Amino acid sequence: MLNDDERIDQLYSSNIKIIQSENVFSFSLDAVLLADFANVPKQGKVVDLCAGNGAVGLFLTAKTAAGITMIELQKKLADMAQRSIELNQLAAQVTMVNLDAKLATTAIEKDSIDYITCNPPYFRVQALSRKNPNPYLAIARHELKINIEDVLNISSQLLKTNGKVAIVFRPDRLDDLFTLFTKYHLAAKRIRFIYPKKDAPKEANMVLVEAIKQGKPNGVRILPPLFVYEQGVYSSEVRQLLYG
Amino acid sequence: MLNDDERIDQLYSSNIKIIQSENVFSFSLDAVLLADFANVPKQGKVVDLCAGNGAVGLFLTAKTAAGITMIELQKKLADMAQRSIELNQLAAQVTMVNLDAKLATTAIEKDSIDYITCNPPYFRVQALSRKNPNPYLAIARHELKINIEDVLNISSQLLKTNGKVAIVFRPDRLDDLFTLFTKYHLAAKRIRFIYPKKDAPKEANMVLVEAIKQGKPNGVRILPPLFVYEQGVYSSEVRQLLYG
Repeated sequence: MLNDDERIDQLYSSNIKIIQSENVFSFSLDAVLLADFANVPKQGKVVDLCAGNGAVGLFLTAKTAAGITMIELQKKLADMAQRSIELNQLAAQVTMVNLDAKLATTAIEKDSIDYITCNPPYFRVQALSRKNPNPYLAIARHELKINIEDVLNISSQLLKTNGKVAIVFRPDRLDDLFTLFTKYHLAAKRIRFIYPKKDAPKEANMVLVEAIKQGKPNGVRILPPLFVYEQGVYSSEVRQLLYG
Repeated sequence: MLNDDERIDQLYSSNIKIIQSENVFSFSLDAVLLADFANVPKQGKVVDLCAGNGAVGLFLTAKTAAGITMIELQKKLADMAQRSIELNQLAAQVTMVNLDAKLATTAIEKDSIDYITCNPPYFRVQALSRKNPNPYLAIARHELKINIEDVLNISSQLLKTNGKVAIVFRPDRLDDLFTLFTKYHLAAKRIRFIYPKKDAPKEANMVLVEAIKQGKPNGVRILPPLFVYEQGVYSSEVRQLLYG
């Protein structure tokens, strides 16, 4: 079941096993935080875009009985995710589609989805930007194949009215998020900033954002800050998420 | 020097005396936090819009030798501010102009200002919204005479290229701020969220935002959270600002 250089990882807090590979893709704290942040409905239809090796979509099964469709462009990652679905005996609930997320409406009906999650590439592609030399990781981290505008455009098309999309992103591009929310008829609803250290005055280095399709403006809620480390170890909140 | 119902307040942390009146206007923590947040240059030209009784502009004198022009629509508040300027012997540095901020370019040259501060009315005016029955306070708190779009429009006109505007506002309208920044050629630079309590997971109830005229996008910095209370008393940061 495992290819060369693959391993099976499992969070202490979760029953889910995830097939990983450091050379191809392994999920990080972002995925755990996004799955925790997402207010998925108990029933209905959920989509995870830019699914990678499927960690976010698989973690969500602990919170919902909704059908979960994961979409991943890279064949090798989609294959890892498919094997993780089988390993966890979740094929009745979770489906992997190996597809460019920009083409998601060829596989999923428009205006049909209740909740979307996405951990997209964060970094703009610039002429001189240093990209990861590993092509799998470069595509996962840089906007080579898809950008945040594509993600929000397709999300808005897939969502029902009042359906929601939750994204983990970089705070320095918060202006892009708000501009694109307006452009694609999404209203920011819940935002949570992630700071590296509780005991040092550091700036946020990640942000979790939830927006609602055709929602009303001026309803932005800024949730309590989330600190990753406290006195050199994971904060109690992060420990709880990772170790239970 | 004092009218009926007026008093002189002074923060322990500051030499500045402020003439206040509970029936007309008295500054609140917002003003102290905004003056602290504002990265005013050491020299140059500074404007405080919607200046109220002048607290923000007067507090800024501790941080800069720049000339500070305060603009306030309400005659009674502008008069209090003028007397506070004289009380503190700051007439050489600080000027009060009793004027509708929307008309600020009739008193101040366009493209001439280095830094603007503003503690504007926060609340949208809606048909059935409950406004403060006191007209002075209603104008200070509700968008009756000026709204956030007016504030950012006039700020953009007054600022030099790369000049900055710092505002204290409500987080639920963060979407409005970003939309208007784009419309008026401002780029969000520094944002700090203010949370009521450090020891309880409450949402932010204020936000400090600094934007730069004709700045580059994607440079948003989310500063460490500011907590007002900790274990039932002011946090050490707020104590420092209020009591020194």
